[in-house]
Amino acid sequence: MRRFLDLAALDREEVLDLLRLAQRLIDHPEPRALAGRILGLLFFNPSLRTLASFQTAMARLGGTAFVITPGQGTWQLETRSGAVMSGAAAEHVREAIPVLASYADALGVRAFAEGKNLESDLDESLFGLIDALCDKPLVNLESAVNHPCQALADWRTLDELGVPQRARFVLSWVYHPRALPLAVPAAALHMAALRGMEVIVARPEGFELPAPIMAKARAAAARSGGSVSESTERAGALEGAHVVYAKEWGSTRHYGDPQADAALRATLTDWCVRESWFERAAPGAKLMHCLPVRRNVAVADAVLDGPRSVVRREAFNRLPVQMAVLHRMLGTAAGG
Amino acid sequence: MRRFLDLAALDREEVLDLLRLAQRLIDHPEPRALAGRILGLLFFNPSLRTLASFQTAMARLGGTAFVITPGQGTWQLETRSGAVMSGAAAEHVREAIPVLASYADALGVRAFAEGKNLESDLDESLFGLIDALCDKPLVNLESAVNHPCQALADWRTLDELGVPQRARFVLSWVYHPRALPLAVPAAALHMAALRGMEVIVARPEGFELPAPIMAKARAAAARSGGSVSESTERAGALEGAHVVYAKEWGSTRHYGDPQADAALRATLTDWCVRESWFERAAPGAKLMHCLPVRRNVAVADAVLDGPRSVVRREAFNRLPVQMAVLHRMLGTAAGG
Amino acid sequence: MRRFLDLAALDREEVLDLLRLAQRLIDHPEPRALAGRILGLLFFNPSLRTLASFQTAMARLGGTAFVITPGQGTWQLETRSGAVMSGAAAEHVREAIPVLASYADALGVRAFAEGKNLESDLDESLFGLIDALCDKPLVNLESAVNHPCQALADWRTLDELGVPQRARFVLSWVYHPRALPLAVPAAALHMAALRGMEVIVARPEGFELPAPIMAKARAAAARSGGSVSESTERAGALEGAHVVYAKEWGSTRHYGDPQADAALRATLTDWCVRESWFERAAPGAKLMHCLPVRRNVAVADAVLDGPRSVVRREAFNRLPVQMAVLHRMLGTAAGG
Repeated sequence: MRRFLDLAALDREEVLDLLRLAQRLIDHPEPRALAGRILGLLFFNPSLRTLASFQTAMARLGGTAFVITPGQGTWQLETRSGAVMSGAAAEHVREAIPVLASYADALGVRAFAEGKNLESDLDESLFGLIDALCDKPLVNLESAVNHPCQALADWRTLDELGVPQRARFVLSWVYHPRALPLAVPAAALHMAALRGMEVIVARPEGFELPAPIMAKARAAAARSGGSVSESTERAGALEGAHVVYAKEWGSTRHYGDPQADAALRATLTDWCVRESWFERAAPGAKLMHCLPVRRNVAVADAVLDGPRSVVRREAFNRLPVQMAVLHRMLGTAAGG
Repeated sequence: MRRFLDLAALDREEVLDLLRLAQRLIDHPEPRALAGRILGLLFFNPSLRTLASFQTAMARLGGTAFVITPGQGTWQLETRSGAVMSGAAAEHVREAIPVLASYADALGVRAFAEGKNLESDLDESLFGLIDALCDKPLVNLESAVNHPCQALADWRTLDELGVPQRARFVLSWVYHPRALPLAVPAAALHMAALRGMEVIVARPEGFELPAPIMAKARAAAARSGGSVSESTERAGALEGAHVVYAKEWGSTRHYGDPQADAALRATLTDWCVRESWFERAAPGAKLMHCLPVRRNVAVADAVLDGPRSVVRREAFNRLPVQMAVLHRMLGTAAGG
Repeated sequence: MRRFLDLAALDREEVLDLLRLAQRLIDHPEPRALAGRILGLLFFNPSLRTLASFQTAMARLGGTAFVITPGQGTWQLETRSGAVMSGAAAEHVREAIPVLASYADALGVRAFAEGKNLESDLDESLFGLIDALCDKPLVNLESAVNHPCQALADWRTLDELGVPQRARFVLSWVYHPRALPLAVPAAALHMAALRGMEVIVARPEGFELPAPIMAKARAAAARSGGSVSESTERAGALEGAHVVYAKEWGSTRHYGDPQADAALRATLTDWCVRESWFERAAPGAKLMHCLPVRRNVAVADAVLDGPRSVVRREAFNRLPVQMAVLHRMLGTAAGG
């Protein structure tokens, strides 16, 4: 495996294979599997879990990692093609990516959506450039509209919980003070669809997920025997839910317009997950969230601290699934 | 050992045991003792020695470490229980601590005093929460009113110098432009008391160490055959001193009131350690300081660069004593 | 080897020896050569290649590294002797350097020129102090007027390209929005002179390299059979060039005077390397640059993306030459 950029690049069996490898690496640790291998981690945006879990994943397999953070110890990097670089950025990714790749055995890169133009972000134009510039294995640590490591960890979490393939998975928009990217909702939607679940996207008017993201998920659902629908009626959507996957994202109607987005979301502060959301859910319904989560803004303390919450397990599962990805990319049996 | 949060949690023999282990790891290196073990380091506040020496300690024992710094590559973390998180902090320690602990084999956390309310800081309420949230071994890298790694390193330094158990140990307040926390003076006081020394706290009026800290040290002294007293008469306190332990701290009379603290300390700039302080000290009296030290503000160049100063040795000793703590926590013989 | 501070401290044969070792470590990896060895990296200034390649170099040889960045997770460090430290800096290098050295087996330090007084920067007074304070092997990661790791990587690049010893090496000033230090031009000039090349420094009036730097290079050239000249006539200088080494630096006429420097350089924006620069160069002439490079400001896209550019190779070569330096310093056969 040379690329882990989008769960959609794998078919269902390949995902299950990776998940089996993750479990195997837990059951039968391989502390020297990646001895001498080096992962370069480039963070254009902040991180906690990704930063910690990728370094840990390499260490648990005997390898090492280094971290580069433009703007923190390293200068800003330019990403626009053809730019006349007379501003703040001192170096272009056209140099930085190949150079870092030349030192490491694999790169992981985090580069969030610019959040100005929806088409451009949907195109993953920056990650496409990074992909083209990197001649080593490459992992997406969250791009404009994707977060495959989170999606794979979430799939593993659902399996661990024994959530049936056909269970009802409600991806619900929740409130946040600012417009956040579409990467996690898009990745979670696709994951649940590819897993074959009955997926409902519950979100207010103006927060529709973009048509290409919905269409891609529907195609995956069709192949896996699942379904994808959407609704603005939260209460109805939550009925019979086995899993509520809470996530904040920006208005797609007002993409790139923070004022209009703010005005719209200001009326939606009741989209904070409370215990009452589960009144007509399936027995034992679970609350998922990728973290970080703003307590009592996106999800109430009572839910996060109660038995429904599996957010810590999702976060832990980043480690084994990333170990599987790295093992597949860099292990001695890796195709290369 | 699952916790290293306060030297006071150990009795004298347990401290001596740790110090023997530190020496053993210097004399007989164990470069694979912690092979495959991972230490997560979380820094809410800046660091130089702690940051470098804990990474080094793990490396010298064959393990690895990762570093998370809220506000530097990672977002701010909320620490208040029940907070409605609509401000700058994007994640709560209630998620961050268990998640980081789930990746690592042990955590080290630095979280200074808030400096607003003395009772709250004396309660170590934040570290108590972190302790409760962490189901892996936990090391205090400096909390509101404690710094056990520094205290243990200082004990080792006193032993190396051959300072007798009953020698006179003067913990002297020194000037600093701002109010600093009580963690190091409290930890050094307790260490010297537990070691059985004749301890005198020399400090100006308004800079008394809090009664609970003094009482705890007196109890330790009583068990070890030492004594603890305090004085505002610096010259008298320094008479016959074998060790002067210089430290800056904030006014406890004006705790949480920077203006009143500043007004009081403005008159105290002569509390800068100079060679004249040692005129009536014991022959060969030593100057200790935990670092960082502001030269010619807290301690004069001539003292720091002269033969009395053992500040570099104290700093180096962070490494062996922390290796001992980590070895006790994570070595194969660790109780767990 | 205890110091790698200046390529000029080595004679030609010693440089060739290091380059042979670099090649040997590529051909015959030694993944355990520095097992258990620890490199401390102290960055007073930002970095990308140095930060990544030194961590990688240690990892490829089985060792580890830690990074300290004053102002980013660590407080500011004072460097002036005798300072009364009542300002922003909380610690002096007189403590920080020996302490960090006591933890590590070697230190690497980056400390750029202050850029205020040319004589002071030419003296390398800060690096001289660091040198005196460090009782472990020490590597210069770029100082006021030197960058020996870059110079050594560039020499290796020239060898790999088969550039003959006597070939024409044009070190050309190029435009940048601000005055940059003299470290890389001085190091590249010396390297090419010591390699025995026909070196020409092409630069506008007011950007003469300082006389001591030119004299030192001329002396090296004399020993190696090369030559060093300089010119303000760019077109003539480029005639017959086998290598154009582009580099930005500040006006030496207006050293420490940003306004006067800015006024002078504002007229020089045509010093941006374009394909036309190579019209009368030798066939297959190469473009070198140490990176980071501002595209379309210092060098045009067409040149950087074309076959002349060897900038990525120069950057990669930092890794093997630094592995050689570290191996020589810390390997079991190291003199110590």
